[in-house]
Amino acid sequence: MTHLPFAPSVYADRLGRARELAADAGQDGLVIGPGADLRYLLGIEGDTIERLTALVVDAHGEPVVVVPRMELAKVRDAAVGALGLRVADWVDGEDPYALVVQALPAAPSRIGVSDALPALHLVPLGERLGLRPELATPVLRELRMVKDEAEITELRRAGEAIDAVHRRVPALLRAGRTEREVAADIAAAIVEEGHRTVEFVIVASGPNGADPHHEVSDRVIGEGEVVVVDIGGAVPSGYNSDSTRTYVVGAPEPRAAERIAVLVRAQQAAVDAVRPGVTAEEVDAAARSVLAEAGLADAFLHRTGHGIGVSVHEEPYIAPGNGLPLREGMAFSIEPGIYFPGEWGSRIEDIVVVTADGCERLNVAPHALTPAGD
Amino acid sequence: MTHLPFAPSVYADRLGRARELAADAGQDGLVIGPGADLRYLLGIEGDTIERLTALVVDAHGEPVVVVPRMELAKVRDAAVGALGLRVADWVDGEDPYALVVQALPAAPSRIGVSDALPALHLVPLGERLGLRPELATPVLRELRMVKDEAEITELRRAGEAIDAVHRRVPALLRAGRTEREVAADIAAAIVEEGHRTVEFVIVASGPNGADPHHEVSDRVIGEGEVVVVDIGGAVPSGYNSDSTRTYVVGAPEPRAAERIAVLVRAQQAAVDAVRPGVTAEEVDAAARSVLAEAGLADAFLHRTGHGIGVSVHEEPYIAPGNGLPLREGMAFSIEPGIYFPGEWGSRIEDIVVVTADGCERLNVAPHALTPAGD
Repeated sequence: MTHLPFAPSVYADRLGRARELAADAGQDGLVIGPGADLRYLLGIEGDTIERLTALVVDAHGEPVVVVPRMELAKVRDAAVGALGLRVADWVDGEDPYALVVQALPAAPSRIGVSDALPALHLVPLGERLGLRPELATPVLRELRMVKDEAEITELRRAGEAIDAVHRRVPALLRAGRTEREVAADIAAAIVEEGHRTVEFVIVASGPNGADPHHEVSDRVIGEGEVVVVDIGGAVPSGYNSDSTRTYVVGAPEPRAAERIAVLVRAQQAAVDAVRPGVTAEEVDAAARSVLAEAGLADAFLHRTGHGIGVSVHEEPYIAPGNGLPLREGMAFSIEPGIYFPGEWGSRIEDIVVVTADGCERLNVAPHALTPAGD
Repeated sequence: MTHLPFAPSVYADRLGRARELAADAGQDGLVIGPGADLRYLLGIEGDTIERLTALVVDAHGEPVVVVPRMELAKVRDAAVGALGLRVADWVDGEDPYALVVQALPAAPSRIGVSDALPALHLVPLGERLGLRPELATPVLRELRMVKDEAEITELRRAGEAIDAVHRRVPALLRAGRTEREVAADIAAAIVEEGHRTVEFVIVASGPNGADPHHEVSDRVIGEGEVVVVDIGGAVPSGYNSDSTRTYVVGAPEPRAAERIAVLVRAQQAAVDAVRPGVTAEEVDAAARSVLAEAGLADAFLHRTGHGIGVSVHEEPYIAPGNGLPLREGMAFSIEPGIYFPGEWGSRIEDIVVVTADGCERLNVAPHALTPAGD
């Protein structure tokens, strides 16, 4: 039980609500494979491998956990043991899909599956059931999107840990080092500051910063260059951090400094817009309009943010077209960026949690363009 | 093009053969998402994320790569650019599944999908096509299972790299250290010895060794304990290593030493059984029968091995019931193990490649129980 981050009653509640929500949505049952949903519902770690592990929820009956016998101990150590859930184990050569079918109501017409379940398992399961499964995402989104106090505590812990890493970045970023060398030091710092895993380390210097999806390369960082550092990991409970700051090695060009000051204002405007009842797209628009006023609308290539919790990217997405009204307890990133192909880019990212009358910012390392180097 | 491990013609051949094999299997088209299959066919790195990237192969037409615009550069740097493949890019708010449907023949009746494609994408795609997709696995297995000379060179490189790590393990394994401390040093050594990524590090000491799926813990390693070290990573081309050795810190108990000597013989017997035409299950049986003769049949809890290449686990599986005849160029692990709950366990694993008249062993670090510690 050493790694279960919350009390068993938390998982019992989540499981009960998942069943209710599935029934309300008219689904006869859920099949939840390894991934964020299973981590959320039962504290089971690990990603999908070739042998099927699944939580099977009968919308009107008892849940069953289907698991390869060799993974039995791991599953029992998660909430499965504490909640006394029924387990159906199997060994190589047996048919795990038959166990799933047995755990579902007879002749179901609608079955929801977790979005991470791979075709390897989904295809045979659909054949066995004689139906096309649908996504359980709408059901699970309702559950996972709004965080309770214990989850917010974990996200706060993650935020503090990644802030501590960002405070160490200026000493690591020096002209003459490669992005990869700096990233390796940052990865070590992510673990040292209290994360269990390193989820991603982006060090994008000079023109590499103009690609929002650049990760890391052997490029040597030069004097006066702007560097985007976007980093995150999971703390021991499995909740994630994700924060971006923009650094400059030595003295920046005045025009870059000016533009990054606008970006900092755009990010602040979006943070200021957050409160219950405001829609996700309104928060996105708040950042976008500050950039547009400064003539930088075309430089902002992506959505403003994404939800975060037991996965790094989840609902709610803070994006144009998302009319979802924000609710207290939702947690997401606010990370506008500006990108100038062939030149440089910048992005500033905090995680925020919606409170009764605004939001709490979980990342407080300095937002302005931060000097680095010797 | 810096990261493409093989010449573009290699990918052109693989893609052409995938199309032929799909047509032979009666499939109208293939949809291949991120994962090992896409790495194999086009050299595209990365795992599935929420935005769809997919290679769409019309069994009687031209392939198309569907990709989010922000990932366009990465995809072009893979074989997509060199082969001049048609690309259909999309941005947030657009419908990527419509692009997949357009790239497939009209009104298809059978579509194969890669086994890693998650429900997140498979469910909407099935709805759009009005059919239940089937797995492309039988088609792609034919392609991926038999390695060509360039692939074997990469697997050999991976084998040498992980052997170099195993040679460093005795100096790292000392009584008083935790499994996690040793694992961190091994992870660093995996990178130092030429891998690009660390895929897994299992350090299972004393009773933890009795669980074949134990990974690592904060358990302090004691004097005289048997420790299973099962490690692997991917070399820059994406091909994987995977090798297990059993160590003892100080002097072993005589009975453990005897049993591990039997295991080494069982592993050797399976290696000796490998040649073209022999079936996978016959190789499995060769290891199993040596253990059974020594009264250890019940201590061997899993299959003897798994294929390896651009993924750590792939076809062929060396397991009871698998009548697949081995062919020259197949590469797989041979890793029998013995497990004594509450006491200790042992496993010995090499990767082998089937040759014209036997096999080449890619891991040659000493197989016998290896002394470690001060």
